[in-house]
This record gives sequence, C-alpha cells and structure tokens, in this order.
Amino acid sequence: MQAFIDKLKKTLPQKALLEGAAIGERYHADWSGEAKLAPAAVLRPASTEEIATILKHCQEHKQRLVVQGGLTGLSGAATPQAEEVSLSLERLTGIEEIDPDGMTMTVRAGTSLETVQEAARKTGLLFPLDLGARGSCSIGGNVATNAGGTQVIRYGMIRNLILGLEVVLADGTIISSLNKMLKNNTGYDLKQLFIGSEGTLGIVTRVVLRLFPAPTSSCTALCALKGFQASIRFLQQASGYFSSELSAYEVMLASYYDYVTQSINAAGSPFSQSFPAYAILEIEGAEQSSDSERFEAFLGEALAAGLIADAAIAQSSREVEEIWAIRHAVSEASPTLAPLCALDISIPISRMPAFVEQSQAELKKQFPDLRMLIFGHIGDSNLHYMMTTGRQEDNPVIEERMYQLCREFEGSISAEHGIGMIKKPFLSYSRTPEEIALMRTLKRALDPANILNRGRVI
Amino acid sequence: MQAFIDKLKKTLPQKALLEGAAIGERYHADWSGEAKLAPAAVLRPASTEEIATILKHCQEHKQRLVVQGGLTGLSGAATPQAEEVSLSLERLTGIEEIDPDGMTMTVRAGTSLETVQEAARKTGLLFPLDLGARGSCSIGGNVATNAGGTQVIRYGMIRNLILGLEVVLADGTIISSLNKMLKNNTGYDLKQLFIGSEGTLGIVTRVVLRLFPAPTSSCTALCALKGFQASIRFLQQASGYFSSELSAYEVMLASYYDYVTQSINAAGSPFSQSFPAYAILEIEGAEQSSDSERFEAFLGEALAAGLIADAAIAQSSREVEEIWAIRHAVSEASPTLAPLCALDISIPISRMPAFVEQSQAELKKQFPDLRMLIFGHIGDSNLHYMMTTGRQEDNPVIEERMYQLCREFEGSISAEHGIGMIKKPFLSYSRTPEEIALMRTLKRALDPANILNRGRVI
Repeated sequence: MQAFIDKLKKTLPQKALLEGAAIGERYHADWSGEAKLAPAAVLRPASTEEIATILKHCQEHKQRLVVQGGLTGLSGAATPQAEEVSLSLERLTGIEEIDPDGMTMTVRAGTSLETVQEAARKTGLLFPLDLGARGSCSIGGNVATNAGGTQVIRYGMIRNLILGLEVVLADGTIISSLNKMLKNNTGYDLKQLFIGSEGTLGIVTRVVLRLFPAPTSSCTALCALKGFQASIRFLQQASGYFSSELSAYEVMLASYYDYVTQSINAAGSPFSQSFPAYAILEIEGAEQSSDSERFEAFLGEALAAGLIADAAIAQSSREVEEIWAIRHAVSEASPTLAPLCALDISIPISRMPAFVEQSQAELKKQFPDLRMLIFGHIGDSNLHYMMTTGRQEDNPVIEERMYQLCREFEGSISAEHGIGMIKKPFLSYSRTPEEIALMRTLKRALDPANILNRGRVI
Repeated sequence: MQAFIDKLKKTLPQKALLEGAAIGERYHADWSGEAKLAPAAVLRPASTEEIATILKHCQEHKQRLVVQGGLTGLSGAATPQAEEVSLSLERLTGIEEIDPDGMTMTVRAGTSLETVQEAARKTGLLFPLDLGARGSCSIGGNVATNAGGTQVIRYGMIRNLILGLEVVLADGTIISSLNKMLKNNTGYDLKQLFIGSEGTLGIVTRVVLRLFPAPTSSCTALCALKGFQASIRFLQQASGYFSSELSAYEVMLASYYDYVTQSINAAGSPFSQSFPAYAILEIEGAEQSSDSERFEAFLGEALAAGLIADAAIAQSSREVEEIWAIRHAVSEASPTLAPLCALDISIPISRMPAFVEQSQAELKKQFPDLRMLIFGHIGDSNLHYMMTTGRQEDNPVIEERMYQLCREFEGSISAEHGIGMIKKPFLSYSRTPEEIALMRTLKRALDPANILNRGRVI
C-alpha cells in the first residue's frame, strides 16, 4: 500500500492526498453507524482526469478504494473497510452550466444538493429532489444511491431527474455521457447502470440534471383518518382529483403521530381528539386562488363523504411549517427511541393494510413492550418503521422478522437507503438468486479486479 | 441448423414452430424497409418457460435468433438476417393482472399497446404511452426500443412507465424482476439494462406497467407563431404556467404546415393567412370549466404580449381532431414525398433554432430543389425532418450531412426509433468510442456467444 501511496504523491497535487493525522474523523464512517475505521489515505481529486489517473494506479496495484461523497448514507457503503483508501469527491465541486431554455444543469459530483437546489431557484426553476441531509449530501452520492425523498410521488426518484452522467470506470476509462436531451435512443442507456449501484460499478464525476418550472401556488392540509385502509382510499381520490398537481402525501399512524405531537413536537396536534391515522396532503400548481378553492372543495367533499374524519388546512406559511414539523419530528424522535431499530421498506400499496396489521400483531405478540411507530410515503409504496423494546439484543430479531414479512408480501427491504454493507445479508429477501447472479456478472464485467467499493451491495 | 430445428420440434408444441411455406411474409421484415428475408424457422412460444428452453437449445447449437414483436420498428432490428431463426412473441399475449389500488398492470410481452391502453381505460385509469402503431406494436417491442410518442413531455418515455420486467437471458436464465413498487433500491436496477437495448441483451417476456389517474378535462389550441425561436419562448411560458398539466406541445414549421394543409389535409388551416411556424398546445387536468378559463386567459395574455400571432382554440371534439389531423397527416404525406429521407433526431433545445437554420441553409444550397418539412416534439428536444429531392441517390448524402450537423450540435441521431441495423453506421456520431466499448463489454457479459439479435445496435 505504501508503494501505491508514494507513487500517487508524485502524480497528484499536495492538497489531493491526506495521510495519518491529517485524516479527520469525518472520513472514518458514514451516517449508518457502522464501525468506524480510518482509511490508509484520503485521495481528494479536483478533476475527472485526476480520478482517472488514480484509478489507473489502483488498477496496477490492485488497490481497493471506497468512494466518499457527503457521507450521509445510511447503509454503510461509504464507511472504509480494511485495506481501503478513501476517494473523496469533496474537491470536485461547482455548477458548470445552467441552461434555462433547455432546463438543465451540469454539476460536478461533490456539489451539495442544497447548492443545486438554490442555483435552480435563482434561475426561477426547480430541482425537485429534497431530503433531510440536503446541506451535507452530495449530488454524486444522490445519484449513486438513487435518492428519493419527499417529492417522489410527483417527480420520481433522482433516476428520473438525470439526463446525463460522466463516470470513471474501475480501469480509469472516462465514460462521458453528458446528454441534455429528453429523448436519446442511441444504443444502451449506460447512465442507468451507475444510478443506484452505490459506487460499485464506476465513480460518478459530473451530472446533467433536469430542472422544472417552479410551482407558483401550493396548498397543504393535515387530515384525520379512520384507519390505514382509509388513507389509501383517500390517496386514490386525491390522486384522481389533482393528478400530477399532487406533490406530497405522507401518512402517519396514531402510534407515530401521538408520540411526536405529545412528546416531541412543540406545536402539538391541531385536532382536539385522537384518530387512528393522519395524512399530510399537499398540491402544487400555478394559480393560488383557484387552487385553494379546488383544494377546499375537495376536502369538503371528502369530509361529507366520510372519506376523512377531520381536516386542518394551513392558512399561513407558519401553519404549513407546523404541519410538516409533525412529519419532520422523526429526527428529534430517533434519539429518544434508543436502541432504535429503523426500517425503510416498500410494500405494494394494495397489500399494505394487511402488512401493517400483521406486522403489528406478530411483533407485539413476541415483544409485548415493543414501541412501534409507523409512517411513510405510501403513494410511493414506502413505509418507515421506528421500533424499540429498549433492549439492543431484540433488534436483530425484530429486523429479521420484519424482512421475512417483507418477503412474504413481495416487498422491498430497502425503499430508498440502498444495500451497502448493512442490508447485504438480507438482499436475497427481495431479489432472486438469478438477479443476484446477474448483478455479479455486471460487477465482474465492469470491475474484474473488484477494487471499487468491494463487498458493498453484492 | 436443421439438427437444431429437429431437436426443437421434439420439445415444442406443434403450433410453436413454423417452417418453409408456413412462414408468412410478415416475418420477413419490420416496417423499416430493410431487405426482406425469410427466416429459416419461426418459433412462437406461448410461455416464458418455452422461451427459456428455446434459448438453452440455441446456446448449445450456437444458433442465432432475431426477436420479433409487432414488427413495427423503423430501424431494422427485427428484420431477419442470414442464418437466423425468428422468435416471435405473438402467442405470448394477455393481461395477467390489473391492480387498481397500486395502479399497476402486469402484461405479457406480445400484447398490443392498444389492448393495454383499453384495459387501463376500462379500469378508469390511463396508460399514457401512445404512438401511431398502437394497434400493431407489442408492449415488449415498446420496452425493447424505449418507445416515446406524443405524451413524453408529461409522462416520459416508456422507461418511466415500467416498474418491473421478466426477461430471459441468452443462456435461458429467467430474470424475474416483476417489481410493483415505485421505490425499490435493493441492488442494481436490472430492468434498465433491457429497456431500449433492442433485444440484444435479453428477451422481455412480462412487464409491470405503471398506470395513472385518467385526466378528466382537456384543452387544445393551434397557435400561429412568428418563427421557430418564438415557439421555444412560447413553450417556456406554457410550461411555467401549466407545469405538469401540459400534455402536448407539437411544433410545425411552415414548410410542413403549408404542405399538409394545402395538399394533404382536407380540413385545411383555420387561419386566413400564413405564418412562419405553428404549435399545437394541449393541457390535461381535472376540472373542465376552470381549466378552459385558465387556458383562454393564458392564450389571451400570450397574444397581447406578442408571444403568439394568432390562436384557434378547439371548441368541440371535432375541432380537436381537426387540429391533430394536421400533425397526423405525416403518414399520408410520407408516400407523396418519395424517395423519402426521414430523420428522427434530438437537439438540445437551446441550440435548436441555430440547428434548424443552419441545416436548412446548408442543404438547400447543396440541393436547391430539396423539399424539407420540419416538425417535432420540441419540448422533448425531438425534431423530425422529411426530405426529398425526388432522386434516391441524394438521400445518403443528405442523411450523412444531417447526422454530421447533429454531431456538431451535440444532438442525437436517434430520438425514438433506435439504432437497429439502419443507423448503426452512424452510432459514433452520437456516442464516444468509450461508450461504444462499454456497450460491447455489456453485450459480451450477457451474451458471450452473440446469439441474440446479433449485429444490431453495436
């Protein structure tokens, strides 16, 4: 390894290589809580060419490396493993071009999501990907993990927001597919291979993003529901009524809602009584007054038809924030539920009510003192579970039973967070042996020496 | 080859194999006009398992095969080449399941697009892919070619409408990725590999499609414009105003418009004078009366601001049809322009006006008698050119110069139709040597014996 590092020192500028004490703790792990490890060196290239050079050296020395973006991943993919050097994209930053006519932005991989969002906003446009880690996560990491977030119901995962990519392969080849067009059927759509493959097939260096017209009106309501099944019927009605104007639909079961409004969230619940379930409904359109009218009319009809039990429509931006604070209280709630078993799963929406019922019944039977908070983006088939018995040793048992149920309900053990190191033991719960074999075939074809993010995903 | 056929005869039901005179002419070529050739045999499996068996036999005998769906492709990918047998999906048909709650449909690959559209409609939902060949083309072919059509501006290409796929690999392995969830980040998204790869990496056998709420209102107008540049500014305004309600935006330059309204289309132009360009604007929403009001208000403002020169708003479904008839007259116009040189290209929208100007100036200088009709889905960066000098020998020269211009403008030589056999000589005009090398790596990894659609794409 030292021979490799010494050789790189001669090639790279001084700033591009950290060793020993110069390696800060932030490079030791991502947000997943995996065992921290200091990498042997941190490489901080500032250009695609430098990355290509590094990878050629790695290939020669069969040197493994772990790719690090904003290090906000929750699956352990960016945490260094033994005998790896880190390749950080933190110096490969900046927006290269915004084309307001074509509604595209070309950006370097290390740029933060928030920087991208703000640059779009300044041009009067919208980059619709949004998630809690926006200030820290990098756009390259968003691509590598196929990030989702709160606007998936309207705009899709980041896969749908990417027009072009530049990627460096394990052998140092630069694949420049910086397409800016919506339609381009000239051979295989190579970028798809790298989106969501968690840095195992190539290193994303530049991205062409798709921008959208910024919505100029929005309406938000918190609705009380008679149960989980009702939340699905209400979603169908809303989706039929508002079509693509529907920009968010977040369901919270009473277990979650009561806990955060009573113990966490200062503003509390706007309702005087308790209900089995709640949904945040949000639409975004172009004309505030007519949109508000239709929004109120829809909720009025839903109430009259018994589709919802009550509704609080936000009348100010402060009230919008208060409604969303109930959903966002998840980050303040997490530390109070230690040791936490948190799941990010998908279940086909038509089977969700049965899944929720069965998972609650089974696990509460096995662990009578289990606290089980359930909420999620159900329009995206995505459920989040936060669970604790207070005993660390129960968590693996709970997790395994939940993933078994996922398999029985033809769901996915990872909706948004990816596989990384942490969920690898469970990959076969959601994918067939043939699928996993094909993933290995692709990995071998693109990285035969297995130097890129070895051991992640497969 | 005969040994291979004899062996298959013993394995497959009688209906599943055609030989000699039983092979109808429809199996000899796709719609591209490539040289027709009768395949040595036509295999017509009715199940995924039969396809797996066939491919295992092919693998053993190194027997090449060409995959045939509805045979409506325009790139020659489904036309048999020497020493190939055809594998037709015409017996692998039928809708297996519609889940109205999850808004998904599971369908066999040989089912026609129109059957899929109608089944969605009967459930009160929408499958938004639409193209002229809807009655003949198969959904498997749509997947294999990443079909686009007229609603891409709102719903994207078929890639965005697919949740899951079942595919048989060249060695007979069945990859069953029949995912029904919007979010599923469990390892590589394998389906992406097969979408748009024109049958060269695997045979699509079943598809899980995403359905949408059916829109309940729609407004259509034909707008007259002062030029091509104005059509882009008008699109930006419309897109900002209507956001995702904007469902179609089709631009026709006077060259196209005048020809079809004067010589082809019976209804003619609704305008009493001629303009440099025209656009069909269509929105789809949920509430007819308020949508119509906003639509008229928008057009009124655009007219007052000089953004458009005139507008005819459709007042009845007959008038909607008359407007669209001008755009759809392309199929009646084609035979009148023989020998036709037809192009389906993409150009980044901000460079489109310069591209249109330069291509017209250069080609009309070289071919003063060139008829050049230009129209397209400009919101998708897609332009269509229909050209003729009346002399067949000019077409290759025109085509090559146009593709050179495409390359200079960083465009794509194939927006929707794919590469197949016909555009293969020009693939390098839109893709780098490194991209093409990576495509070959993938092809070798998935089909090392090169038996599936050999020679197509790469």
